[in-house]
Amino acid sequence: MSSIGIGLIGTGFMGKAHALAYRSAKAVMGDVPDVRLELLCEQPFDKAEKFADQFGFARATDNWRDLLNDPAIDIISITTPNMLHHEMALAAIAAGKHVYCEKPLALTLDQAREMRDAAAKAGVKTMVGYNYIHNPAFTHACRLIKSGAIGRVVHFRGWVDEDYQADPNLAWTWRSTLADAGLGALGDMGCHLVSMAYGLLGPIDNLVGDMQTVHQTRPLSDGTGSAAVENEDTATALVRFASGVQGSISTSRSAWGRKSRLAWEVHGTEGMICYDQERMNELQLYQNSGNPAEQGFKTILTSPHHAPYGNFCPAAGHQLGFNDLKVIECATFLSALAKGEDAYPNFNDAFEFEKVIHAVATSAREDRRVKLADFD
Amino acid sequence: MSSIGIGLIGTGFMGKAHALAYRSAKAVMGDVPDVRLELLCEQPFDKAEKFADQFGFARATDNWRDLLNDPAIDIISITTPNMLHHEMALAAIAAGKHVYCEKPLALTLDQAREMRDAAAKAGVKTMVGYNYIHNPAFTHACRLIKSGAIGRVVHFRGWVDEDYQADPNLAWTWRSTLADAGLGALGDMGCHLVSMAYGLLGPIDNLVGDMQTVHQTRPLSDGTGSAAVENEDTATALVRFASGVQGSISTSRSAWGRKSRLAWEVHGTEGMICYDQERMNELQLYQNSGNPAEQGFKTILTSPHHAPYGNFCPAAGHQLGFNDLKVIECATFLSALAKGEDAYPNFNDAFEFEKVIHAVATSAREDRRVKLADFD
Amino acid sequence: MSSIGIGLIGTGFMGKAHALAYRSAKAVMGDVPDVRLELLCEQPFDKAEKFADQFGFARATDNWRDLLNDPAIDIISITTPNMLHHEMALAAIAAGKHVYCEKPLALTLDQAREMRDAAAKAGVKTMVGYNYIHNPAFTHACRLIKSGAIGRVVHFRGWVDEDYQADPNLAWTWRSTLADAGLGALGDMGCHLVSMAYGLLGPIDNLVGDMQTVHQTRPLSDGTGSAAVENEDTATALVRFASGVQGSISTSRSAWGRKSRLAWEVHGTEGMICYDQERMNELQLYQNSGNPAEQGFKTILTSPHHAPYGNFCPAAGHQLGFNDLKVIECATFLSALAKGEDAYPNFNDAFEFEKVIHAVATSAREDRRVKLADFD
Amino acid sequence: MSSIGIGLIGTGFMGKAHALAYRSAKAVMGDVPDVRLELLCEQPFDKAEKFADQFGFARATDNWRDLLNDPAIDIISITTPNMLHHEMALAAIAAGKHVYCEKPLALTLDQAREMRDAAAKAGVKTMVGYNYIHNPAFTHACRLIKSGAIGRVVHFRGWVDEDYQADPNLAWTWRSTLADAGLGALGDMGCHLVSMAYGLLGPIDNLVGDMQTVHQTRPLSDGTGSAAVENEDTATALVRFASGVQGSISTSRSAWGRKSRLAWEVHGTEGMICYDQERMNELQLYQNSGNPAEQGFKTILTSPHHAPYGNFCPAAGHQLGFNDLKVIECATFLSALAKGEDAYPNFNDAFEFEKVIHAVATSAREDRRVKLADFD
Repeated sequence: MSSIGIGLIGTGFMGKAHALAYRSAKAVMGDVPDVRLELLCEQPFDKAEKFADQFGFARATDNWRDLLNDPAIDIISITTPNMLHHEMALAAIAAGKHVYCEKPLALTLDQAREMRDAAAKAGVKTMVGYNYIHNPAFTHACRLIKSGAIGRVVHFRGWVDEDYQADPNLAWTWRSTLADAGLGALGDMGCHLVSMAYGLLGPIDNLVGDMQTVHQTRPLSDGTGSAAVENEDTATALVRFASGVQGSISTSRSAWGRKSRLAWEVHGTEGMICYDQERMNELQLYQNSGNPAEQGFKTILTSPHHAPYGNFCPAAGHQLGFNDLKVIECATFLSALAKGEDAYPNFNDAFEFEKVIHAVATSAREDRRVKLADFD
Repeated sequence: MSSIGIGLIGTGFMGKAHALAYRSAKAVMGDVPDVRLELLCEQPFDKAEKFADQFGFARATDNWRDLLNDPAIDIISITTPNMLHHEMALAAIAAGKHVYCEKPLALTLDQAREMRDAAAKAGVKTMVGYNYIHNPAFTHACRLIKSGAIGRVVHFRGWVDEDYQADPNLAWTWRSTLADAGLGALGDMGCHLVSMAYGLLGPIDNLVGDMQTVHQTRPLSDGTGSAAVENEDTATALVRFASGVQGSISTSRSAWGRKSRLAWEVHGTEGMICYDQERMNELQLYQNSGNPAEQGFKTILTSPHHAPYGNFCPAAGHQLGFNDLKVIECATFLSALAKGEDAYPNFNDAFEFEKVIHAVATSAREDRRVKLADFD
Repeated sequence: MSSIGIGLIGTGFMGKAHALAYRSAKAVMGDVPDVRLELLCEQPFDKAEKFADQFGFARATDNWRDLLNDPAIDIISITTPNMLHHEMALAAIAAGKHVYCEKPLALTLDQAREMRDAAAKAGVKTMVGYNYIHNPAFTHACRLIKSGAIGRVVHFRGWVDEDYQADPNLAWTWRSTLADAGLGALGDMGCHLVSMAYGLLGPIDNLVGDMQTVHQTRPLSDGTGSAAVENEDTATALVRFASGVQGSISTSRSAWGRKSRLAWEVHGTEGMICYDQERMNELQLYQNSGNPAEQGFKTILTSPHHAPYGNFCPAAGHQLGFNDLKVIECATFLSALAKGEDAYPNFNDAFEFEKVIHAVATSAREDRRVKLADFD
Repeated sequence: MSSIGIGLIGTGFMGKAHALAYRSAKAVMGDVPDVRLELLCEQPFDKAEKFADQFGFARATDNWRDLLNDPAIDIISITTPNMLHHEMALAAIAAGKHVYCEKPLALTLDQAREMRDAAAKAGVKTMVGYNYIHNPAFTHACRLIKSGAIGRVVHFRGWVDEDYQADPNLAWTWRSTLADAGLGALGDMGCHLVSMAYGLLGPIDNLVGDMQTVHQTRPLSDGTGSAAVENEDTATALVRFASGVQGSISTSRSAWGRKSRLAWEVHGTEGMICYDQERMNELQLYQNSGNPAEQGFKTILTSPHHAPYGNFCPAAGHQLGFNDLKVIECATFLSALAKGEDAYPNFNDAFEFEKVIHAVATSAREDRRVKLADFD
């Protein structure tokens, strides 16, 4: 594969992030195949043309099916609203394209399973946009835990909060419906937290969850009244990992002041590691060693000692940004593709993460402990 | 009541805190009755004498029953290990003494109920050592919530962690037994968190809990092997408040690096308030008001604007310490006593807090949702 | 000396702090002589009586000279406005009393020198209220530096800021005059910073300073106009320590948001230590050792490993407050007195600290480098 | 100008940052002209070829003079070691190219002045890599000050510290020589701080400085002994701005633990703003308004409310990284060029910043107050 042809569907938050990542992946990382930005899809057509020009794509279309049989395209990036992932991904897979899809895979676990199975059967490569787990601070935390830096892991707590639905006066949109949005906070953010928990501690075996729609109705934007919010604003679960460790996860989209608080703490027999995405270039590490009078949480600033930070910047503490994580993710996929290998996390991995958020919702609705294996 | 006679049982961590508080209460607060430090009980007797001299008590004894019928004593402070509170408090109440007891009231909820009922029947006044709820930062947070500063409360999260049992090599003691210590982290720390949650949001209606003994055995100090740890190192619960708000509480005594992390966040429809006891002179406040470009969490340093901070210090940001909270608690009790009023939190209030920790343990053991009303 | 008789002049911020400290010193520290709270002076007399009752003093007076020849009094605590220290301290020394005086010693360096020399000649013991240097976090920092924990010291920076004169509309008072207040920010706060710098790095040899009155007039409180502010709101100096190390010190009383920001950083060849009084129970320590991927500033919470913290509380991270530092200071003086030893910092030490603030002012006024030796 | 041809000299830290910025500028910002990555210069030639391929440049050379007369090239980016800027920039200007040069302009102020004058005379456009002043957090701070959010500015303090020369055992290199490196910490970092101070408060009128080489010799890497360090490790100055405001600036390249601490605080009559580059997505704002009981420093996370953050990411708190600042800088230059306008900061502006660092060095060497006007 001398160079890889790219088709991109969507030009919003994630569409732009994909485009930027494709433009920078090789320049940053070096050992990444060349890409050709072939075809960009957006609606209406003039918007597609505008963004094709801005992002550097050769051609534009307003019909995503144009990408399916375009022989110049190897990868299709799907960055459309979540409700569209399922249909588009299945079509892309059917067309033999590799798929780089934003999270979550789909609105329902059944759809996600179908996507996973279709990709496996077709033998195409996949990548899912769980970009936070590519943060050098995060992968270093995983290495620290694996190396025994905090001893045996004994407890976990994680939170992921934003405030984009905190205002009670925010107008009702399709985001409030089960049919168009599926899960609420769990789908938008909860699965990111799960992807981190899995990297740090491995799979969850069973859990008990609770959830709540704190703003039960929202005003209609046309002023004609209000409509019901069908999905959850907050969700929390007591989880038991397969390793036997207990913990908890919690999410809210109505948490005023939290802008990107994807935070967790891992307790071990010899120390603790903590992280907060709002300070994504820092890791907190406590180790029970040395003089007790000098123990304390260390604030580790990411640096070239935390690969692949050094590919972005040879100086410590100069900081990566949100879009840089997407560059790492994209480069990971492109490199794996060039080698004919699977990338992490692919549809299979993403399905495992997303089982958890659907399990939390099921447990909360039915007020009972659920086993993850029942969602396979 | 011209002056109040004090009898103190115990001279450890809490015994000293009570003694210091009695010595400072009036000098700090002004409108507090005088106290006479009459009789201090410790074992053996020479230790009692030494501490009576150090703390300024007139007399010493090694027999706590000496306090019961001493006519010079109005209040008995009970600061002994938790297993002794029940017997001592009941005896003090029977002797017609007012009781200032450390938390938790007792090892079991049955004992706590008996203490509550006995005090009510005898008509004596009681106070329980939930000192953190007297922090001016905390009471200001309660006022802020009540005044609508963050709108309607929609979610709660709380944690209370220390690391005094984090070391797997720490020797086995009576603290690990149900018979002598009762609950583990829930009893030592969890009830403090509940006392704060109740002040901020009111009572909990029902919950689902999970708990774990992460260090299942501990070495015997005589080197002859190891013994089982019978109570929990960690516990977490999904709680539903009577107001309908959902939330979670969690505690660990095996959380390396946490020294006094009694922390919580209250989410409202118009803002958020956060607190961490490790920075006990600070309050974090976010309000959705004003220019969005200038919104952010404010770090409020406690000051004379947060009564009764000004009684300690007329300058903002100069900080109260742990023992100062005990001074406020003690002064509150003494003042109430002088007026013949009930103080907060008395045995009745403490019983409400402690119902919750026992409910968490019951829920965890039986793997089911429990209602607090069933523990009345 | 079986017990020590105390006379206290003043009942404001510092008067109360002294009273509380005398009441707690032995109870907290144990090996401290008993005190008798003999005579309290305040004006008018009914205020003196009120505070004598509140603070537990046996007698009250409105004439401070009554303390001088009172045979029951061993120590006179001087907590009056700075302009009064000189006359009172000289009178107390002349009467053979030991003197516990608030900082700064006096308005002018000449007065301070006279006080220092009088005390030395009379052979009485003295203590000056540089309470921040008794903080266990601070003394631990000094030990760390001495032990080589950060290698050879190479640089220093310090700041001390508050905002009590930040409001331009604050009324003019005597605090704005050279005659009644002497120096501004340098006298109120700058000398505290110097006391810390001296403990950390030893004496300053020479310096260049600049200073400014940022609010050059203030409104008269009777609405009749405004009056000039004669002393400095801000002052900064480039300092060279006797050891050869360079550094800087800066102070402002017009720094909005700073409530007690007495902060510094000491740079060494192998690490750095930082401190901020607004989080007075924390120390920041960076050491260049171990795996570079895990280096970072450690937040050390004070604990029983940092004597005498454990005398206040046997549990780490539970925090001391402002008044607790005064207890340590007071106990230090009482213990030294009982042993017939000098306490630190006495009038001699305080004179050394205060030379620096006067040197800064002189350098700023004359726009030239000054040597500290010229102020001896 | 339909598209702009780029020639890049250098592929190190800054060379890569320029390349990435050119690749992303239009994709991120939209209204930016297209660029053609024409010719990359590095030595030896195979390294040039490798990086031309990685960064996406059409051609490679090992002779920087090849860029001068290449008609396809409009802008020459100079990212070589500082000692080479002067010759290359003058040659580029002479060839009629626009120049995008890294800071500092040159080793000496005379060289910098010559570059400034040559560019002005030739009429070419210039940009200098003071990337930190393009941070949306910084430009928002400037807007806040201008809008009066903190009242009249009364004081300034700034620091810029790293630890790349903190290790005494680090080998001697050309960086330690006046001939090849010129100034030390002042040149590497100090000028960044000045660029921020000028944006916040305007020009400095005069100053008094001090500086020090704390590691006076360094071991030769061949083990044959050690050599002298000729330039400063630390430098500090008391500055007076043209506006009359006093302040101080300080820099150290031997500050263990500081990785990118470019920090400052601006004091105003109604508030304060603080910033630290190590948390480059945060701004600290204190305002004296509203209820005193709820005042405190606000931590503002950058968001789409702080243009051009939203061009990178439509969600608040998701964070920009170091390379993103270079994208803004690059886009600023490209856009200005397209309009035939001057960009900020150009050689003229950079000369003003760099006057200050040379003035500090002169003042320190000659131990006297210096006026900036004397360096024009």
